[in-house]
Amino acid sequence: MTPGRWSEWFPILRWGRTYGRAQLLADTTAALVVTLLLIPQALAYAVLAGMPPVTGLYASMLPMVVYALMCSSTVLGPGPTALRSIMSLGAVGSVAAAGSAEFVAASSVLAVMVGVALLLMGALRMGFMAAFLSRPVLAGFMTAAGVLIGLGQVPHLLGVPLRTDTLGAFAASLAGALPQLHPLTLAVGAAALVLLWGARRVVAAALRALGVPAAAAELAAKVSPLAVMALAIGLTRSLGWASQGLAVVGDIPAGLPALSLQPLVQVGPTMWQALLVPALLIAVMTFIEQISVAQNLAARRGEPLDANAEMRAMGAANVAAGLSGAFAVGASFGRTAVVADSGGRTPAVGLIAAGLLAVVALAFTRWLHDLPLAVLAAIIWVSLGTLMDWRSFVVNWRYARSDFAAQALTFVATLTTDLVTGLTVGVIASLALHLARSSRPHIAVVGNVPGTEHYRNVRRHAVVTHPHILGLRVDESLFFANAGYLEARVAEELATHPGVRHVVLQCAAVNDIDASALQSLQQINERLQRAGVRLHLSEVKGPVMDRLRRSDFLQRLSGQVFLTHHQAVQALLHDGDAAR
Amino acid sequence: MTPGRWSEWFPILRWGRTYGRAQLLADTTAALVVTLLLIPQALAYAVLAGMPPVTGLYASMLPMVVYALMCSSTVLGPGPTALRSIMSLGAVGSVAAAGSAEFVAASSVLAVMVGVALLLMGALRMGFMAAFLSRPVLAGFMTAAGVLIGLGQVPHLLGVPLRTDTLGAFAASLAGALPQLHPLTLAVGAAALVLLWGARRVVAAALRALGVPAAAAELAAKVSPLAVMALAIGLTRSLGWASQGLAVVGDIPAGLPALSLQPLVQVGPTMWQALLVPALLIAVMTFIEQISVAQNLAARRGEPLDANAEMRAMGAANVAAGLSGAFAVGASFGRTAVVADSGGRTPAVGLIAAGLLAVVALAFTRWLHDLPLAVLAAIIWVSLGTLMDWRSFVVNWRYARSDFAAQALTFVATLTTDLVTGLTVGVIASLALHLARSSRPHIAVVGNVPGTEHYRNVRRHAVVTHPHILGLRVDESLFFANAGYLEARVAEELATHPGVRHVVLQCAAVNDIDASALQSLQQINERLQRAGVRLHLSEVKGPVMDRLRRSDFLQRLSGQVFLTHHQAVQALLHDGDAAR
Repeated sequence: MTPGRWSEWFPILRWGRTYGRAQLLADTTAALVVTLLLIPQALAYAVLAGMPPVTGLYASMLPMVVYALMCSSTVLGPGPTALRSIMSLGAVGSVAAAGSAEFVAASSVLAVMVGVALLLMGALRMGFMAAFLSRPVLAGFMTAAGVLIGLGQVPHLLGVPLRTDTLGAFAASLAGALPQLHPLTLAVGAAALVLLWGARRVVAAALRALGVPAAAAELAAKVSPLAVMALAIGLTRSLGWASQGLAVVGDIPAGLPALSLQPLVQVGPTMWQALLVPALLIAVMTFIEQISVAQNLAARRGEPLDANAEMRAMGAANVAAGLSGAFAVGASFGRTAVVADSGGRTPAVGLIAAGLLAVVALAFTRWLHDLPLAVLAAIIWVSLGTLMDWRSFVVNWRYARSDFAAQALTFVATLTTDLVTGLTVGVIASLALHLARSSRPHIAVVGNVPGTEHYRNVRRHAVVTHPHILGLRVDESLFFANAGYLEARVAEELATHPGVRHVVLQCAAVNDIDASALQSLQQINERLQRAGVRLHLSEVKGPVMDRLRRSDFLQRLSGQVFLTHHQAVQALLHDGDAAR
Repeated sequence: MTPGRWSEWFPILRWGRTYGRAQLLADTTAALVVTLLLIPQALAYAVLAGMPPVTGLYASMLPMVVYALMCSSTVLGPGPTALRSIMSLGAVGSVAAAGSAEFVAASSVLAVMVGVALLLMGALRMGFMAAFLSRPVLAGFMTAAGVLIGLGQVPHLLGVPLRTDTLGAFAASLAGALPQLHPLTLAVGAAALVLLWGARRVVAAALRALGVPAAAAELAAKVSPLAVMALAIGLTRSLGWASQGLAVVGDIPAGLPALSLQPLVQVGPTMWQALLVPALLIAVMTFIEQISVAQNLAARRGEPLDANAEMRAMGAANVAAGLSGAFAVGASFGRTAVVADSGGRTPAVGLIAAGLLAVVALAFTRWLHDLPLAVLAAIIWVSLGTLMDWRSFVVNWRYARSDFAAQALTFVATLTTDLVTGLTVGVIASLALHLARSSRPHIAVVGNVPGTEHYRNVRRHAVVTHPHILGLRVDESLFFANAGYLEARVAEELATHPGVRHVVLQCAAVNDIDASALQSLQQINERLQRAGVRLHLSEVKGPVMDRLRRSDFLQRLSGQVFLTHHQAVQALLHDGDAAR
């Protein structure tokens, strides 16, 4: 690789050269804040993914280092997220028993697969893959995922085991379990929820009232989950709640993650196969979210953004997550905002934060033993607001029924089947709706605006037409989805215009004609010819004409290709008269 | 239903009223010719589908009656085809043992499912489903299917059992089986091939030379398979070839098919599920072929065509095929041409042909006992020419590489995996290529053509621009696949035009803005606003504007909506001066 290539893959070689003391100070502050935010999230989302809590810490360390070395934007990189955790749980949970060693290995393999998929998409510049997921489908899916995540936490909040696989089973088991609920767990969970929700609204306002600068007050409110966590640990430990039946996190092994290829060989080929589709879906979704977060930050700071570099960096981060025994990771809008607000300027924030997390993993895990699971569930609950977007249902219903239909279908399918099926249904629905729309392109019969060389839709304008010439303006590129409609439409127009001897297709808006559409044009040409009608084209764009020359269509065309529609009509006017 | 509705579903109520003696004579002649053509095809394609030979006759009778009552065009309707038979074999063969009663029942269930899918698509006017299959994908698939069908007949032609599941297994077993091949079978098969191929070329020419009218000579050549069949039966019977190891069709029960719902209940829900995707694919393909055949005939005769009625009639025909114990059926280009050439004018051809087939099934099945399987294999072989389209590979390679890629991928996937997987791969590939193309719409920076109110691409024309106004012309409808590109492109253009204070999107070519694109526009608006740049729109089409009014985009828009791009530039020209 040339030096240029190296710095394309590792942008740190560019920004690292000019790194100074002022930046270090700002970045360290931001890293400290984000670490405080990350600790409770890491533990909560690890539990959500069905993984040992410590893997949540692992999921942030090495991936953040890798990402910081490779990322182009100053976005704080990868870490555990609610969405990826529940998708990982769903995918791995269907092939391995929860809590088993195989489950942990498969979760890591899934992260590696997500990473490899992102690396490949980045290397092959396949950012367009994101186009498969429309925003209404994504919103419908995320909202349903939020509902499922919320329901999944109810057993931890109530202190009773519940079935959470389907909505019906959940409701039935909830009714049956209500008499046995554990009052202490419920009290701790409810208190945590109130404190967490309250902290968001009250703490910042209170601090500002006490004279603390607004930005600092905001930050203090954002790291309040750590304070709630510390309070809960302190109370549980001093009052002996764990022995009264309050479920706690328990022993967390101290130390750094060991890099290991073991899971990759431990998991058999059938499992690799079963995880393939979920891995692709998680990869595409991770890319979309990351680009959305990165574009926002880049726009705010006026920095350029390299989407392929972002994809590669996130891919490498997921491979790193898998190899360090953790699960699939992604960008978080919340954490990114915290880094930006607290003054982080460069990817070094990630390097420093990873170091701080390593210190936590080495020295502080025993403090986390008495953390109640109900508090982690409460932390997950208050984070769901960013995932669920109910308003978009209303907005899309008003704006475009077809988009609403795709969104609602995705939402219902995700809730009633599983995450992968739900998202797949959404993708197919939005593709089908798009094809249905584009399968009927706008085609207008055109006539001459008297005294000009312009041609307009006969339905909207007072224009002049000739009975033996049919002018049709095609308002879209011709491709496989609308080629059949063009054939049918030409036949239809011809049936209602019996005197026609020349059909002229005005192609000014046709940017492309694919092989299917070419075949349709050829069939139209042949059929018209058999009926004694000639087919002409006008205003064909240069690139389209170049391509048509590579087929035998122009040789077979019964008519001519005219530069302008007006020239065509002028030339055919007299031919028609002569023919009568 | 009103009488109008009845005759929409049963067009026979319209054409039946004016049916006369001249038409009856013409239709009877056509029916006789097509029956002679159909008998060998029916037996051959039944064997190809892994079904008892007699079901080939069943597959034509009731379906033809149902179709004749419901079809709108004069196309001769449904019957066994090579493509549907191999697809049926592939789908059913993966869930039931060949030759078992379950296999026969599952084949019938598949036909019913194909029929119901077509009926639903017709009732819901979902003809656009055909848009999922591009022509190159279809050509690649059919060519591969032709190869597979041809290979599958080799054991019958050589008289040895061979593995035909994969190409490698086929080659290996062929090498091993060569020493054991059965000379008599090989001789009969080769002779049949030579006669069938020769008949096509020689018979018509010879008859014409003898003074027979050209049309009659062509027809005689087309029914030559029946003559070859009769010759083979005669020789086999008189020379006792069956006792010398030549495989023959064997006993065929005489009689008409019994209508039965038995298979539908006999087959369990898991099998229904397994057959769902193949049924949908066969339905869509059947519809595409049928419309293609029907459009050709309708164009030739100048008759109108109702695609939804065609779909319903073919759906009902497939249900009838399934209920009479047969397999999935479709339209055949060859048989349709024969009907047209021999003077068939109305759907009554199908009714008469069904009657003739019933006579065959009642009285002549014992004559078919000694028909050699090698002759049926030869009949299938000579029919493959219409299925395989090698030339399209060359044409598409020259015309459009992306279409060629989709075609080649479909071809290879179909040959190396199975028919359903191959076709699914093709559908996904053409959708992905379409999305990849449309994910990067043409967006031009435009400037004023001096002395006019026209705006053109700055790269192609000598135009005037203003440093504080950026005019962008979007050349395609905005939807989920290209919304992200628009965001990125605006950001990019802004980075290279640092003095810009107004961005004007010229939307004359934007026919639609879906919910995803609306969100992108909203984000562009917000980001520009943060950077002190205002966003304007110009030349927004009426329907697009109506829809935008149903969202809050216009309230949030930092700039204005102008009727023409020129008005926009005129209005912003002075604002920019003042701002400096």
